[in-house]
Amino acid sequence: MHLITLAYSGTLRDSMKHFFESKRFQTIITIIIIVNSILIGLETSEVIMIKYGSVIDLIDLVILVLFSLEIILKIFVYKLSFFKDPWNIFDFTVIGISLVPAAGSFSIFRALRIVRALRLLKSIPKLRLIIESLVMSLPSIGWIVVLLSIVFYVYSVIGVSLFGELYPEYFGNLGSAFFTLFQIMTLESWSSAIARPIMDGVPFTGVYFVTFILIATYTTLNIFIAIVVNTMNEVALQNLHEEEQHIKDFVSQENEKLKSQLNQIQRQLEKLNNRTQA
Amino acid sequence: MHLITLAYSGTLRDSMKHFFESKRFQTIITIIIIVNSILIGLETSEVIMIKYGSVIDLIDLVILVLFSLEIILKIFVYKLSFFKDPWNIFDFTVIGISLVPAAGSFSIFRALRIVRALRLLKSIPKLRLIIESLVMSLPSIGWIVVLLSIVFYVYSVIGVSLFGELYPEYFGNLGSAFFTLFQIMTLESWSSAIARPIMDGVPFTGVYFVTFILIATYTTLNIFIAIVVNTMNEVALQNLHEEEQHIKDFVSQENEKLKSQLNQIQRQLEKLNNRTQA
Amino acid sequence: MHLITLAYSGTLRDSMKHFFESKRFQTIITIIIIVNSILIGLETSEVIMIKYGSVIDLIDLVILVLFSLEIILKIFVYKLSFFKDPWNIFDFTVIGISLVPAAGSFSIFRALRIVRALRLLKSIPKLRLIIESLVMSLPSIGWIVVLLSIVFYVYSVIGVSLFGELYPEYFGNLGSAFFTLFQIMTLESWSSAIARPIMDGVPFTGVYFVTFILIATYTTLNIFIAIVVNTMNEVALQNLHEEEQHIKDFVSQENEKLKSQLNQIQRQLEKLNNRTQA
Amino acid sequence: MHLITLAYSGTLRDSMKHFFESKRFQTIITIIIIVNSILIGLETSEVIMIKYGSVIDLIDLVILVLFSLEIILKIFVYKLSFFKDPWNIFDFTVIGISLVPAAGSFSIFRALRIVRALRLLKSIPKLRLIIESLVMSLPSIGWIVVLLSIVFYVYSVIGVSLFGELYPEYFGNLGSAFFTLFQIMTLESWSSAIARPIMDGVPFTGVYFVTFILIATYTTLNIFIAIVVNTMNEVALQNLHEEEQHIKDFVSQENEKLKSQLNQIQRQLEKLNNRTQA
Repeated sequence: MHLITLAYSGTLRDSMKHFFESKRFQTIITIIIIVNSILIGLETSEVIMIKYGSVIDLIDLVILVLFSLEIILKIFVYKLSFFKDPWNIFDFTVIGISLVPAAGSFSIFRALRIVRALRLLKSIPKLRLIIESLVMSLPSIGWIVVLLSIVFYVYSVIGVSLFGELYPEYFGNLGSAFFTLFQIMTLESWSSAIARPIMDGVPFTGVYFVTFILIATYTTLNIFIAIVVNTMNEVALQNLHEEEQHIKDFVSQENEKLKSQLNQIQRQLEKLNNRTQA
Repeated sequence: MHLITLAYSGTLRDSMKHFFESKRFQTIITIIIIVNSILIGLETSEVIMIKYGSVIDLIDLVILVLFSLEIILKIFVYKLSFFKDPWNIFDFTVIGISLVPAAGSFSIFRALRIVRALRLLKSIPKLRLIIESLVMSLPSIGWIVVLLSIVFYVYSVIGVSLFGELYPEYFGNLGSAFFTLFQIMTLESWSSAIARPIMDGVPFTGVYFVTFILIATYTTLNIFIAIVVNTMNEVALQNLHEEEQHIKDFVSQENEKLKSQLNQIQRQLEKLNNRTQA
Repeated sequence: MHLITLAYSGTLRDSMKHFFESKRFQTIITIIIIVNSILIGLETSEVIMIKYGSVIDLIDLVILVLFSLEIILKIFVYKLSFFKDPWNIFDFTVIGISLVPAAGSFSIFRALRIVRALRLLKSIPKLRLIIESLVMSLPSIGWIVVLLSIVFYVYSVIGVSLFGELYPEYFGNLGSAFFTLFQIMTLESWSSAIARPIMDGVPFTGVYFVTFILIATYTTLNIFIAIVVNTMNEVALQNLHEEEQHIKDFVSQENEKLKSQLNQIQRQLEKLNNRTQA
Repeated sequence: MHLITLAYSGTLRDSMKHFFESKRFQTIITIIIIVNSILIGLETSEVIMIKYGSVIDLIDLVILVLFSLEIILKIFVYKLSFFKDPWNIFDFTVIGISLVPAAGSFSIFRALRIVRALRLLKSIPKLRLIIESLVMSLPSIGWIVVLLSIVFYVYSVIGVSLFGELYPEYFGNLGSAFFTLFQIMTLESWSSAIARPIMDGVPFTGVYFVTFILIATYTTLNIFIAIVVNTMNEVALQNLHEEEQHIKDFVSQENEKLKSQLNQIQRQLEKLNNRTQA
């Protein structure tokens, strides 16, 4: 496939590919991202905005154009294979989100421009590695999250049915019940603000909160354990395999000595045999 | 025993058993559980209840009849051995709880219908496995829980004796003291809402709360460690056994070479021996 | 030494020793402790106290006399070696604390009678093991606790100097500062109740709280890690030693075969040698 | 280099070096630090200050002079190599901070005198070891901290943009947003005091807080796991290497026996060979 692309994309595309993958280009992009992130951060200060607002907005626009150009050129160069790398999709999404405020003027979209700073996660190799390993360990906890979701759903429905009318702030509908249960799972004010006031109104509700906490924390504990065991296991397995190899090497090397001695014996025997035959 | 049941249960029971254990039946049941769970969730919305309440109630009734039928038929097919599988007892209990609101009209029982969603934990094999492993690791923490209970009991009695009269909300009786200590163990508002107000009224009580927190968190920490060590240990042991087997295999394979060489020597010696005898 | 004690202590002391160490005696004591604990728990209920207060007090007194007798007899039997077992000192202290309220009438001492329930920790072998292992893992964290104490001391002194005058409730003196820092370490209301109000009065104090939290949680994290690593290590070492032994056994058993084959060769050679000599 | 210093520094410098490195000197310094720390602690009590304030201040001054002298003499003795040991830089900084309040009279600097107590971390060898191992495990978490900082920065900027005007206390500027996010990361009052009030004013903000908590706790969890795995790994590797050595030793010792048997066989063969030759 590489040969085919070469054939009809010509020299320009090749040299651009070379440029995009050069260390120098990576460094420039990283610096631009950092500068851009700092500028967007400065915009949160009103004093600075009044003084330098227009300059910062201009630089921001230039950088956004540069980033957009980078993506467009990359798509031109790598074509559809551009979208095969999850990191490229990440870049594409981040720039896409940044382009929205250029069009509209909703403060929420303006706020989202800062997600461009997340491009650093891709540009700095060490961070990229950490992100990749964090994402990699997600599947091992996937089913526990499903389990936790079912527990959340069941407790939400019970919560809305029992406390929904009296405490709409916490259990008005499934959405607020989910949020409340998330708060309870983090143990934040679960008793002083939620459980105790409700227990005054509805008897025997202590059971609801205590069982939820026990189940939720025990389950999240197991999410945690799953990750620890997974990570440790990989490291431990590697160590074990190395040790295994060392022992094997040692055994075969020791046996090599025995073999050479046996060979000597065989030669001696052959000599003896030849002599007796003669 | 299998042969005997076959003998007097006839073909109907057999084909039903076959049907119950088929992948297709499992999938249908799983889908019904999911549909049912969503419907019960929808019932928490008043708007939906006003519009579609009667339809949802009807479908819910049909599904409950289906589930009850499933259990009844399974008991007919598997007889008493049905109750030997803990998961069947789980199903039986869940459906039993769901049947209560059909009779009465207490909102608490109506709320409990959602426990049917928990049948998913049995229907989805991955979840089933996780639940089983979670339950399996419970015995390893059993005695630490007994220890924690004794600590809770002792601190409850002391709490009621010392603070019961002045702070009945937190230490009015053993029940509320248990709940308060549970709240303190989760560290929720233990100082701002409980310890500090009480310390103003009763001097030297800081010791009560601080020692309880130290003991309770140290003990729960050890519950946690017990689970981690148990889980890691199983994995590590398996790895070690595999490594052991690899080394053993390698050693015996290496020695096989030595043996074959020794065999050659023996044959040479025999030849020599024969010749000298001749 | 055992023979010497036998010599001058006579048959009575021996048979009592035998009785104290019998399974039956242990069970009786355990049951009495449980009954006693329940009774002291019942005393927290006013209703029960009014009705059965005198009966419960009588039983309590009888049990206390029994326990005291047990200790006295044990000291008579085991003499000074009684105090060599930390568990005996534990029993002695627990009964000692219980005897105080019999004399005075301070409610605090009355409350402390429940510590007798802690004797269960000694009577039930499983709990005894857990307690022993919990206590055993304390030394491994000893020095980290010293380190944490120094951190607490330094932050307490700084806290009293900076905030003592304005916020005497939290930092009035070293004692209250210690309690406040303990509360902050548990992260309970550290910001909403303590840091934010103080930050309004004294600028740049966010650094004080944030650094303390980072240092304290990082250090306690390492207490935790020390225990996990210690526990895991013991288990892992045992597994490794077993594996080592298995491999060694296998190697020596394999080599035994080689040796026996070598022995055969030697015998053949000897035969050959003898024949050529002849 | 050592010889050269000897040459022109003379006997005085040498004997001082000897003195500084003696166990006796270490002990004296440790005792002085402890005494000094207790005195500074006593100064937090007004009652004691009124009675003994002048005496304590005098002793404090004497100790400060002693400490300063120690540093000056050490710099004289070790010259620039004094600053090569991080612990010396630590001492130098601690004494430096202590010298400021002697000049000015700001209470904040007066409060900082207690940092001298931190010199204990250097004087007590066990603590020194723990500190060193704590610092050593920092690099393994360095990049995760960078990652966490980026997450903090992005959420701070979004927070200021969205909630800055309405909730200046929590999100008035980047600094307060950082502090608020730190508070949320510790889960303290994140919902009852921050998220719920803001959610009333700005819709869909639950997502902001919940995603931040999930990302921040998942990332800190991985900081924790990194440390555990690192520490365990070191211990495990050492054990594995020991086991490896044991097995190797055993194998070579077993093979030694085989070799000696083979040597015997070779000698027998040689004898046989010689005889047949003769």
